[in-house]
Amino acid sequence: MNAKKFAGEKAVEYVKDGMTVGLGTGSTVYWSITKLGNLVKEGLNIKGVPTSKETEKLAKELGIPLVSMSSVDHLDVTIDGADEANPNFELIKGGGGALLREKMVASISKQFIVVIDESKFVNQLGAFPLPVEIVPFSWETTLKTINKLGCTPKLRIKTDSSPPFVSDNENYIADCYFENIENPAELNLQLNMIPGVVENGLFINMADTIVLGKTNGDVTVMS
Amino acid sequence: MNAKKFAGEKAVEYVKDGMTVGLGTGSTVYWSITKLGNLVKEGLNIKGVPTSKETEKLAKELGIPLVSMSSVDHLDVTIDGADEANPNFELIKGGGGALLREKMVASISKQFIVVIDESKFVNQLGAFPLPVEIVPFSWETTLKTINKLGCTPKLRIKTDSSPPFVSDNENYIADCYFENIENPAELNLQLNMIPGVVENGLFINMADTIVLGKTNGDVTVMS
Repeated sequence: MNAKKFAGEKAVEYVKDGMTVGLGTGSTVYWSITKLGNLVKEGLNIKGVPTSKETEKLAKELGIPLVSMSSVDHLDVTIDGADEANPNFELIKGGGGALLREKMVASISKQFIVVIDESKFVNQLGAFPLPVEIVPFSWETTLKTINKLGCTPKLRIKTDSSPPFVSDNENYIADCYFENIENPAELNLQLNMIPGVVENGLFINMADTIVLGKTNGDVTVMS
Repeated sequence: MNAKKFAGEKAVEYVKDGMTVGLGTGSTVYWSITKLGNLVKEGLNIKGVPTSKETEKLAKELGIPLVSMSSVDHLDVTIDGADEANPNFELIKGGGGALLREKMVASISKQFIVVIDESKFVNQLGAFPLPVEIVPFSWETTLKTINKLGCTPKLRIKTDSSPPFVSDNENYIADCYFENIENPAELNLQLNMIPGVVENGLFINMADTIVLGKTNGDVTVMS
């Protein structure tokens, strides 16, 4: 049974006629978007705001009308995945490198619905390396400063001999191995106050609902 | 009498043999760099880290040896100007658009010396529009969010019909008209927590010394 499919499709219940909808990126939201595409064919009237070029392409193929983020004041609901989520609804996102656009979309959403399978739900964040978007200028300096917060930061590259991974915003990504993040809200602040850090993958006080899919077919909704 | 020249030259007294020195940008630091160039010719042994291409060019012409910021762990002293400074040593910088690199340099400096003429010394920050560096993606959204903090943000352009000003980091600058900034430390935090904001021009807990030049020739040093 596909836990991601169950979670992704369940979350679509939050989307109502006339809404502007933030469309996340990833293998779980894929199922939300696919279902939304079917509902649009059946007459559902929504406008989507994609968080990546990948999602934009998928939504267009499915016939979901899209608008740019800059043209709207807010989103009624956003559905997106996460790399980790804890019982306080704090998230790590950005494994795909799109954390900045995802955080911008989430920050103007009235409702932010997170869809995950049970492997992503953890008691404490940090086993997944926290992605931090940094400016390329003197990135070595920024990594040294991040290191003082108690982690091992690694500049993201594709392969050992390749140049750094470059985000949609022409920045680099540092993957930060904290192992255990004791206070995610404090770390979120500390990271964003470092000159050279553009944004980090901690999403605090953003998620309203977690839709958790299990391999046995159960879906748990937490609000 | 040139107040900027008096302040700029006075600050050079903080530079000692063997130091690594952050070199700011602007019409007051110009005088510091020029004097340092003369001292280097007389045998002073320093390494400079420039905060802009403009300063890099000037320092090279003057024969000041330069190293890249990424090659050093810290700077012994940095001399830089400011657009405004208050009696709490809080600053507004970034009128020239180089606030991010300037803030990175200041953040790893053991001593940060600010050189200004008396027109820049104010009781309350905010008459000078605060520069905020933002990512180009959906910059309209970021401006709307900044606006909620109680200011009128204007995207920096060169002339009315020109494209936006682009920083050294390929970002845009929003000039934020606050008029009066009641709590600079809090605003510094609030701005940097907005997804889409890369950095802002408030320098809090960074300046160690202000060297203030007056048109009558006096120089006041505050530490």
